[in-house]
Amino acid sequence: MTKVPSSLENGATESARDILSGDRRALARAITLIESAREDHQAQAQVLLGNLLSHTGGAVRIGISGSPGVGKSTFIEAFGLHLTEIGKRLAVLAVDPSSALSGGSILGDKTRMERLARAPSVFIRPSPAAGALGGVARRTRETMLACEAAGFDVVLIETVGVGQSEAAVAGLADLFVLLVQPGGGDDLQGIKRGVMELADLIIVTKADGDLRDLARHTESDYRSALALIRAHGKGPRPQVLSCSAMEESGLAEVWLAIEKHNDALVSSGELATKRQSQAVSWMWREVEERLMAALRDEAGVTALSERLENEVAAGRQSPVAAATAILAAFRQQDGDK
Amino acid sequence: MTKVPSSLENGATESARDILSGDRRALARAITLIESAREDHQAQAQVLLGNLLSHTGGAVRIGISGSPGVGKSTFIEAFGLHLTEIGKRLAVLAVDPSSALSGGSILGDKTRMERLARAPSVFIRPSPAAGALGGVARRTRETMLACEAAGFDVVLIETVGVGQSEAAVAGLADLFVLLVQPGGGDDLQGIKRGVMELADLIIVTKADGDLRDLARHTESDYRSALALIRAHGKGPRPQVLSCSAMEESGLAEVWLAIEKHNDALVSSGELATKRQSQAVSWMWREVEERLMAALRDEAGVTALSERLENEVAAGRQSPVAAATAILAAFRQQDGDK
Repeated sequence: MTKVPSSLENGATESARDILSGDRRALARAITLIESAREDHQAQAQVLLGNLLSHTGGAVRIGISGSPGVGKSTFIEAFGLHLTEIGKRLAVLAVDPSSALSGGSILGDKTRMERLARAPSVFIRPSPAAGALGGVARRTRETMLACEAAGFDVVLIETVGVGQSEAAVAGLADLFVLLVQPGGGDDLQGIKRGVMELADLIIVTKADGDLRDLARHTESDYRSALALIRAHGKGPRPQVLSCSAMEESGLAEVWLAIEKHNDALVSSGELATKRQSQAVSWMWREVEERLMAALRDEAGVTALSERLENEVAAGRQSPVAAATAILAAFRQQDGDK
Repeated sequence: MTKVPSSLENGATESARDILSGDRRALARAITLIESAREDHQAQAQVLLGNLLSHTGGAVRIGISGSPGVGKSTFIEAFGLHLTEIGKRLAVLAVDPSSALSGGSILGDKTRMERLARAPSVFIRPSPAAGALGGVARRTRETMLACEAAGFDVVLIETVGVGQSEAAVAGLADLFVLLVQPGGGDDLQGIKRGVMELADLIIVTKADGDLRDLARHTESDYRSALALIRAHGKGPRPQVLSCSAMEESGLAEVWLAIEKHNDALVSSGELATKRQSQAVSWMWREVEERLMAALRDEAGVTALSERLENEVAAGRQSPVAAATAILAAFRQQDGDK
């Protein structure tokens, strides 16, 4: 382990105490530390998280995604307000690896969820700045843990669906919610391939006015589609619901469905198992990513692997032979240190 | 690159010539070399593949999977015989990481496809012996390349669906075919989560006798389900067909659908792009797997990571801190060499 100076440890102990006591500013400062790329900040963040670890795990962790235009912010605001009405403390986080460094992410944008952002029992934090998905997701996971230590009952983690971000968010959460439009299936509004099967709950939004009947049909279509997929073998079958943020209808049912799903996971012991294996997966994913990053950054390796990528793509070099060359260059560099 | 003795190179040049001329025994010997775990055999295999590389790429690469009981062997035999009737040369390979070392895989089992195994224009090879999925899939990929160099027009790669094997096979193939039962959706016979969305073609088997009407309804159900999923953005939309191996009906339609899909990929340039990115992915996957294997096997790291896995699972240690410790132990070992 990196040897940590005692001043750092003391600072981390105080911050932990503040966070645990519900100090919102202390939480925000901790998250800024977690998100920082600086090595010394990272070391501090790890010490702090070590102190908070035994106080984590107390929230329901919900991942949420949906195509642009489906009404995600509208839904999150209406659903979030419902949760505050029934006495829940809610944190809203985001995973958006494409967010422009200056402009910030459109997710977790408080201006799109003004009423929710003003609620005292709600904490909203935009996505960490753009970067590799792995790094962004990891920081969001640690932010989630900090929020749990701070006493939030529900953590909502949203994503827009860039690349593999849904899979990353599903790997953080207890359950994954997918929002879809009435009518579904259009080129732009259908579900991205690979995502439907991550979902534990599919919600058809905008089930009001002219779209009400269409929403009901779409709900039924998704239920039929899910029936073709083998039950996980364990765990509750995915559900499909409709709701309208505008009319504020269906939101209580959504929370009841989530609670029911969660209770089932808790009583079967599956929630514990799931979280354990998620944590272990995170460990190995972190090892793998950092090892591969070290390899790719190695001076002698970068140029070689670029050249070999081209050779392999052109069919002039076999992938396995190219891999052998890259590994040899890397291990050699290491041996010279 | 590993320096290869000239005797090895000469041997590999001869073998390549034999394979290219259609010598079936030379092909079988080459595959045995590819599958061998011995380092010297591996080196020979890489030289041989290097010689064959410019002669690969000439087959239609089809991945195929389906739940046990769906009638995969029956289908492959009937479909394979149809292909021979229209003048195609067919290789049938398998990816089955769970195959018992002694008993061999149930896939590519010639006794289950006797008639097909006897056809002169057909070559059937069971899965490489049990091992990590990555290693099995890699050897199957190289076997596929050898078969292409040997002049086969179609390579069929089947898998039973253990773990992530469908994803691995989809990563080798131009298109992925999923076989399903009439009625679909049952606990045991529904599609494994994550697989439906890999499919380019879904085939409902056993569309004969009492099941004929049910098969037609199932075909329609899957078509509706696929309509909810966004078109890939590029590439043809997945199709759904029925067939009966017993009546030998629908098989010609299956091949026409595959040809049509393939032609579309070729004319849009997508096939080339797909194969290039598959090859590059294989290179990085190989680098990653061998690097992680080296890490896990490192004496000082194995015990440490086992202990840390338990700590992380128990919530006593954060995944990131544990990863840091594992990486430090590994890089240190490397530096000592």
